[in-house]
Amino acid sequence: MRKNILNTINFPKDLRKIPKENLPQLAKELREFIINIIATKEGHLGASLGVVELTIALHYVFNTPDDVLVWDVGHQAYGHKILTGRKEIFHTNRQLGGISGFPKRAESNYDTFGVGHSSTAISAALGMAIASRLNGENTRQHIAVVGDASIASGMAFEALNHAGVTDTNLLVILNDNAIGIDPSVGALKEYFTKVKGKGAKDADNIFEALNFNYTGPIDGHNLNLIISELERLKAVSGPKVLHLITTKGKGLRQAEENQVVYHAPGKFDALTGDLAPKSKQMEPPKFQDVFGKTLVELASENEKIIGITPAMPTGSSLKFMMDAFPKRAFDVGIAEQHAVTFAAGLATQGFSVFCNIYSTFLQRAYDQVIHDVCLQKIPVIFCLDRAGIVGEDGATHHGIFDLAYLNCIPNLIIFAPRNEIELRNIMFTAQKGLKLPIFIRYPRGKGTILDWKKPFNKIEIGLATVLREGSDIVVLSIGTMANNVVRAIDMLPSSQQNKIGLVDIRFLKPLDENLLHKIFKQYKTILTIEDGTILGGLGTTIVAFASKHNYKNPIEILGIPDVFPEHGSVAELQDLSGISSEKIHKTLKKYI
Amino acid sequence: MRKNILNTINFPKDLRKIPKENLPQLAKELREFIINIIATKEGHLGASLGVVELTIALHYVFNTPDDVLVWDVGHQAYGHKILTGRKEIFHTNRQLGGISGFPKRAESNYDTFGVGHSSTAISAALGMAIASRLNGENTRQHIAVVGDASIASGMAFEALNHAGVTDTNLLVILNDNAIGIDPSVGALKEYFTKVKGKGAKDADNIFEALNFNYTGPIDGHNLNLIISELERLKAVSGPKVLHLITTKGKGLRQAEENQVVYHAPGKFDALTGDLAPKSKQMEPPKFQDVFGKTLVELASENEKIIGITPAMPTGSSLKFMMDAFPKRAFDVGIAEQHAVTFAAGLATQGFSVFCNIYSTFLQRAYDQVIHDVCLQKIPVIFCLDRAGIVGEDGATHHGIFDLAYLNCIPNLIIFAPRNEIELRNIMFTAQKGLKLPIFIRYPRGKGTILDWKKPFNKIEIGLATVLREGSDIVVLSIGTMANNVVRAIDMLPSSQQNKIGLVDIRFLKPLDENLLHKIFKQYKTILTIEDGTILGGLGTTIVAFASKHNYKNPIEILGIPDVFPEHGSVAELQDLSGISSEKIHKTLKKYI
Repeated sequence: MRKNILNTINFPKDLRKIPKENLPQLAKELREFIINIIATKEGHLGASLGVVELTIALHYVFNTPDDVLVWDVGHQAYGHKILTGRKEIFHTNRQLGGISGFPKRAESNYDTFGVGHSSTAISAALGMAIASRLNGENTRQHIAVVGDASIASGMAFEALNHAGVTDTNLLVILNDNAIGIDPSVGALKEYFTKVKGKGAKDADNIFEALNFNYTGPIDGHNLNLIISELERLKAVSGPKVLHLITTKGKGLRQAEENQVVYHAPGKFDALTGDLAPKSKQMEPPKFQDVFGKTLVELASENEKIIGITPAMPTGSSLKFMMDAFPKRAFDVGIAEQHAVTFAAGLATQGFSVFCNIYSTFLQRAYDQVIHDVCLQKIPVIFCLDRAGIVGEDGATHHGIFDLAYLNCIPNLIIFAPRNEIELRNIMFTAQKGLKLPIFIRYPRGKGTILDWKKPFNKIEIGLATVLREGSDIVVLSIGTMANNVVRAIDMLPSSQQNKIGLVDIRFLKPLDENLLHKIFKQYKTILTIEDGTILGGLGTTIVAFASKHNYKNPIEILGIPDVFPEHGSVAELQDLSGISSEKIHKTLKKYI
Repeated sequence: MRKNILNTINFPKDLRKIPKENLPQLAKELREFIINIIATKEGHLGASLGVVELTIALHYVFNTPDDVLVWDVGHQAYGHKILTGRKEIFHTNRQLGGISGFPKRAESNYDTFGVGHSSTAISAALGMAIASRLNGENTRQHIAVVGDASIASGMAFEALNHAGVTDTNLLVILNDNAIGIDPSVGALKEYFTKVKGKGAKDADNIFEALNFNYTGPIDGHNLNLIISELERLKAVSGPKVLHLITTKGKGLRQAEENQVVYHAPGKFDALTGDLAPKSKQMEPPKFQDVFGKTLVELASENEKIIGITPAMPTGSSLKFMMDAFPKRAFDVGIAEQHAVTFAAGLATQGFSVFCNIYSTFLQRAYDQVIHDVCLQKIPVIFCLDRAGIVGEDGATHHGIFDLAYLNCIPNLIIFAPRNEIELRNIMFTAQKGLKLPIFIRYPRGKGTILDWKKPFNKIEIGLATVLREGSDIVVLSIGTMANNVVRAIDMLPSSQQNKIGLVDIRFLKPLDENLLHKIFKQYKTILTIEDGTILGGLGTTIVAFASKHNYKNPIEILGIPDVFPEHGSVAELQDLSGISSEKIHKTLKKYI
């Protein structure tokens, strides 16, 4: 049996001692190491498998961390983590207290820039490269590793446009595997496909138009070739692009063949690649599937319905509509800004446009929400998936700011369903013709109701729902937090339960002020709970209401405190934020 | 004397009756009409003068408003407004109750999409074009008129990338005058310059790479040529680009020669173009100049200081640093997303980066602020100009959301100077090494202090300032609102003035909780005032503080109510929002 090379490597300095001819063996071992751990611990598989050779080559050729390596998106970086001091703790990946699933500056000086959202790497690397120029560090190298789906996002283009007029040592690696989480889309992707067809002879290309020195495309799994090209490019001054063709999921047959599923496959068999069998128990649906299936149901009745996703057909389940009504469903790529204003343009022509964006990614289109949608009162229907705590993806991905950043904007409706039926019904209501844009936010993961496919009912805009009456204390919740509260109340002795009322506020905007007046008169103490930031969300809105109307009831706000929650399970992180059933239970006991 | 043609035109249908050979005369008259009114009423001059021929040609060739015309940025649209029913009220442009300086849907069905921020037109027009396809309106035309500075912004690229894979009747007019407000920058601009050199023979270009049919460049002041090209392109199916070369300020010599000044020149002599003489009285400086000059002062002592602006060298006065230290000052073009993450990249390398962005445009980089800066605690120094009510630019430009949308983010400092000296001192403090990013927001226009260039003093982070003690009521203000409050107090009889205390909160974050505890004990009634949205800003933060600590004092929040303020003078709009001195005075009287 051959000696295991990976065992001898803890840091890139160890790697650089390995003879070049042994690197393919190392690549094999690194792949196996990733597969074996992700098979049981779960995580992002495909992207990291695709860049195993590239990762080894980069740390072999460049003097990291002095030469700076910036990973775009970040779920490509498992191999990088393993080769830069985190092999022994890699099994803690994405767990509470473990390492992050993405590069993170606080974790290692090899992680030069934290990342989770896409298309930031060129800007960050360019900043570092300009810094080196100013410091007179003229041989220092700065490498941004960008996927072809990420480079189509506007931010990456802005960075290229700037970098092209600088004389920095910036190397953009275009990792072209024709897929993000779902297959890449758009004119640029088609252009890359043409370039690949023509081969390296195609000199007059889009990167050269932007003043980059362009090389490629080359085979991204050929270690010798990558290393020799990187060595050569070290000596080329100014901004440059190396275009690599890679295969997402490389080295695990099933992951290569089914790249969407194996992006983050959950548990699987490390040898065969077979996915762990799904529970046969009947389970409530994921919220995303309630969205996706309900949209198809509505769209088959209402031909004015359009669906839009920026690069998340599978994650949002817009895929169902793309299959059923391909002409009326659009994946616009990683382009949230465009997605929002494109939706607005469609809606001006009388269409009912469902624009589905993860809460955390809507941050990318905040100006478009204000300037293009709300200011003009264009009734786009936004469905914000992954709102609240998202779990293992961690700090970059939590959808905890939406309630606050939307609440300050005039002319909009903000709704959060507490279960699948509420989501269905608000979607039904929204496409019946609202006069304002609506933002429907719901969490990652499953609902609570098995039999969710009920006939539609219209929801009256701005009405809250009293879920239970109580004598002393009332909890005002929004979204699925109502379920945590119900469980918290159930933990109380039954003699105490009737003290607690529960109201699902549903609409952060418009607020059900009539009901609130009743509540402030009926109850002594008010608790509010939301899976969003305490600052600026439901709680502060209720406190402002009370102040305005001179109510003196004690109010306690539960929600995400003023820190970024890290990674871990949703339950763990909700508990740390004080919004789990157990913590709500504790808070309730204080007031009884 | 020739008959005046413009007099006969109220709507495009009138225009279409004019023989083609008379259109140059109309162009001359339209130019004069614009110049004569803007000379006395003020407004955006240069951009609209540059597109007079294009505007006439578009409404002549296309069947507006059935064919949809979407103006990017919107300050190009004066000619459009005059030719589409608003000639008689054009003199009310940008005034309270008058027409908006930008296209606005509520104003005319010829204004198909409201606009003020740049680079939105292609997305909106593409949405409309897809809508037409779905409706089977296959001859309907959709035209987006985009400047070369706007097309370099990421959002425009996202839209091109999507449009290139559609079969829509989308025509993008690239109005290439090599200038936005300041001269265009970046690799794409250099590329256009090369294309112009080569002329129309350059077929294999960047637009064609994105699957657009490309025509140009052609002379954008040759009416016959534009009309014949537009007629021809009507029959070309699929997405297309017409590249026009125009001169900003065309037809007024001084405006052509000094395009930056004549972008929005204030009052001037309609015949000679001479600017109205400036007041010889000594006046306090503009806040932007305090920023610009102070930055140069600091940068000459601290070589680690960098300045960044996304396309606003003149408007932000970063121009001073660009002249003094060209290697350390960057205009990155209309690219706020890139500007923020580029700043973060630089700051990771130990530089003190001043990133100056108008408050309203920081909305474009909200995700980058959260994900790239605050999450990583990278101490970028943001200077947000044009915060609060901006006046005549109106609803698209008010910087009223920043306090709310920043306040919910962890790991940041939010400061608003009440005068020039505070701005200087916080800039001095920030470059001495903070551990967190800081957001310094200040308004458009002038300060209050003639002798502002005082020696620097360090400001202690998180300390509020008591400006006056009182016996009953205290006003907590942020930023320049303190000045409005001082004037409001001065309007009271002197016997009542000593009832009123005034505290400049300065830091919305971190809040000076020690002082707040004292205040809540010392005073009976609390008023808060901010030139930002009531929802989510200072007022709600103070109310939440009171609730948390069980203070029962009555609190009234003054600020921008939950509507978009329109256009008008700053004073008029502050008054309408209840935050003028007069309105504060009225509110104070209620409590005395």
